[in-house]
Amino acid sequence: MSVTAAAGFEASGVVAGLKSSGAPDVALVVNRGRSTAAAAVFTSNRAKANPVLWSQQVIADGRVDAVVLNSGGANCFTGAFGFQTTHSTAETVAAALGVSATDVLVCSTGLIGVGDQTFRDKVLSGSTAAADALSVDGGLDAATAIMTTDTKPKQAVVSGDGWVVGGMAKGAGMLAPGLATMLVVLTTDADVDASGLDSALREATRVTFDRLDSDGCMSTNDTVVLLASAESGVAPPAGDFAAAVTALCADLAEQLQADAEGASHDIRIEIVGAASDDDAVEVGRSIARNNLFKAAVFGNDPNWGRVLAAIGTTSAEFDPYDVDVTINGVRVCHAGAPDRPSDDVDLTPRAVHVLVDLKTGPVEATILTNDLTHDYVHENSAYSS
Amino acid sequence: MSVTAAAGFEASGVVAGLKSSGAPDVALVVNRGRSTAAAAVFTSNRAKANPVLWSQQVIADGRVDAVVLNSGGANCFTGAFGFQTTHSTAETVAAALGVSATDVLVCSTGLIGVGDQTFRDKVLSGSTAAADALSVDGGLDAATAIMTTDTKPKQAVVSGDGWVVGGMAKGAGMLAPGLATMLVVLTTDADVDASGLDSALREATRVTFDRLDSDGCMSTNDTVVLLASAESGVAPPAGDFAAAVTALCADLAEQLQADAEGASHDIRIEIVGAASDDDAVEVGRSIARNNLFKAAVFGNDPNWGRVLAAIGTTSAEFDPYDVDVTINGVRVCHAGAPDRPSDDVDLTPRAVHVLVDLKTGPVEATILTNDLTHDYVHENSAYSS
Repeated sequence: MSVTAAAGFEASGVVAGLKSSGAPDVALVVNRGRSTAAAAVFTSNRAKANPVLWSQQVIADGRVDAVVLNSGGANCFTGAFGFQTTHSTAETVAAALGVSATDVLVCSTGLIGVGDQTFRDKVLSGSTAAADALSVDGGLDAATAIMTTDTKPKQAVVSGDGWVVGGMAKGAGMLAPGLATMLVVLTTDADVDASGLDSALREATRVTFDRLDSDGCMSTNDTVVLLASAESGVAPPAGDFAAAVTALCADLAEQLQADAEGASHDIRIEIVGAASDDDAVEVGRSIARNNLFKAAVFGNDPNWGRVLAAIGTTSAEFDPYDVDVTINGVRVCHAGAPDRPSDDVDLTPRAVHVLVDLKTGPVEATILTNDLTHDYVHENSAYSS
Repeated sequence: MSVTAAAGFEASGVVAGLKSSGAPDVALVVNRGRSTAAAAVFTSNRAKANPVLWSQQVIADGRVDAVVLNSGGANCFTGAFGFQTTHSTAETVAAALGVSATDVLVCSTGLIGVGDQTFRDKVLSGSTAAADALSVDGGLDAATAIMTTDTKPKQAVVSGDGWVVGGMAKGAGMLAPGLATMLVVLTTDADVDASGLDSALREATRVTFDRLDSDGCMSTNDTVVLLASAESGVAPPAGDFAAAVTALCADLAEQLQADAEGASHDIRIEIVGAASDDDAVEVGRSIARNNLFKAAVFGNDPNWGRVLAAIGTTSAEFDPYDVDVTINGVRVCHAGAPDRPSDDVDLTPRAVHVLVDLKTGPVEATILTNDLTHDYVHENSAYSS
């Protein structure tokens, strides 16, 4: 169970015909609880899809009754017709549930520019079908229906003292800073108001999804939403709740990394000794986005020179000639010069750990990324065909 | 002819054994003219190789007698021993030519971290051999000796009114902003002082090499140097001279793009309607660095959605819903919505033209890049083996 782990929630996933494969492609998550408090964060890309433009308005009052999601089309850059499709989708769900359309969030994922009349017809009929299929056991169906190039559904649950928070996620490509083609729905039966949800969600995404940078590309549709039903009757301490949401997001982020398009290595880039959080993240991200380093990891080559060349492009506070680089436990560079032989590094396991000590301050941060592979190129060159 | 096209210059290229292939790997360019005025620009990467650290000191007084270049090792992050190798290289060349070591620029290219005693021995003996081999016809030999993964030497000449400027370049990978693994030596017999050379060179690189961004990765060793012998006896108008240097750099930049590692398309990203130069370059670069767009071009897929998703991450002044995108002459996106069918775009030719109209101001800029291919991944995962 995932989005239906918390009391008060129902979910479903149905086949609407948006995916040529015939796989489920419309999901619905509904909050039936005594509270409908909600918070959400969206892509920081200025090119926002219609569902994001709509949902930003819906979340403004901190109340959400339902989230409807479709794969098979991003409904982005589809003009006024596309925005109307999103609006109609919310109205269709609202009518089926007896709620207001302005309390229905809409999420879409798939190709940009897809959103014609056929798309609209399928999304609307799928939304009706999804409302009919709602179930307290529907979490897996929903998680399956939001998959695009994901190879498996992604779910997680974290239990608190008398309450739970669960969630589902999709997003095998375009994982990037500021949340990228990631659709995440989290639900809890804890009694937390919209403001508390917003704080916990922002704290969690800042150190989880925002530090997952698979390929440096940021989507137009990313949405992470957190719904609270209050059905447990428990109002947890803010710290406990935020910690649980962060743990949940970290779990889902690692699942996203492990299923990133075409990847053969999951790379954990740990920056220590930084002067500030911003410095640590900037340095980590510069490595995560360096195609030469990522291609080297694909080839099981612990090319620390490319790590130094990458971090040298940042404005972070450190001396390039005082930096240590350790790859999978072997310190291959000490104070900007070769240390132990690169041949000692075993890069055959999927998990790769790159540790960079900037020797400037006490701050640490970890960025998750993947290698650059033949399969990544293949999947993303053939994606729209 | 290239670096030996201008009167007063000699050059050579010899086999020093640095490359396992046995190909030429040490080059020398010497100014025998009545003037030894010079200017240079270097990588903006903070992780600078030993030859760059040395050469920045050499160029300070605006006089250079010779440039010695080696492939087969970057001599970067090789510690104090590596810097001493660079110093000894300059001294070896200076002794052979009867000039001061502080007037000898040194350039290296190849793997970071390579610079041991064997490397030093070969570079020094190669430098002596290169001095012995100097010739007024040695331009091609020199251009050949600086190649790494380049498949062909790169040379160009532009003629002025009674003077010429010629040059050579290497750099098939890591082409990026701020000049990337690019070694470029330009020579002229025009009578221009160091200050005039510096102005012309900076004006030229700003709109040529600095706008060539093959893979977003910046090298530790990039150097572009311009030497003037004054042997023509002609002091050209500053504007004429700068225009010639810019034309020469543009020619060499296009040769670098056409020979970028693993590329199957040369992509010219033209931004028009920008509010400022910075905006135009930022927008162009965001497309040039978007792996998803570059992989799509490899697959002959005119995926304009990825163009908009890329530019949406910038802070440039424009409305994402008022942008036009034209690919190879077909306007596939108008005002942020689909226009002509993507199927009308023919991406089978190697040359690709992406035109983005931001509709905000009068400024234009062009960024050159390449697609992301299987061969790029392969070459860069196997490079050090």
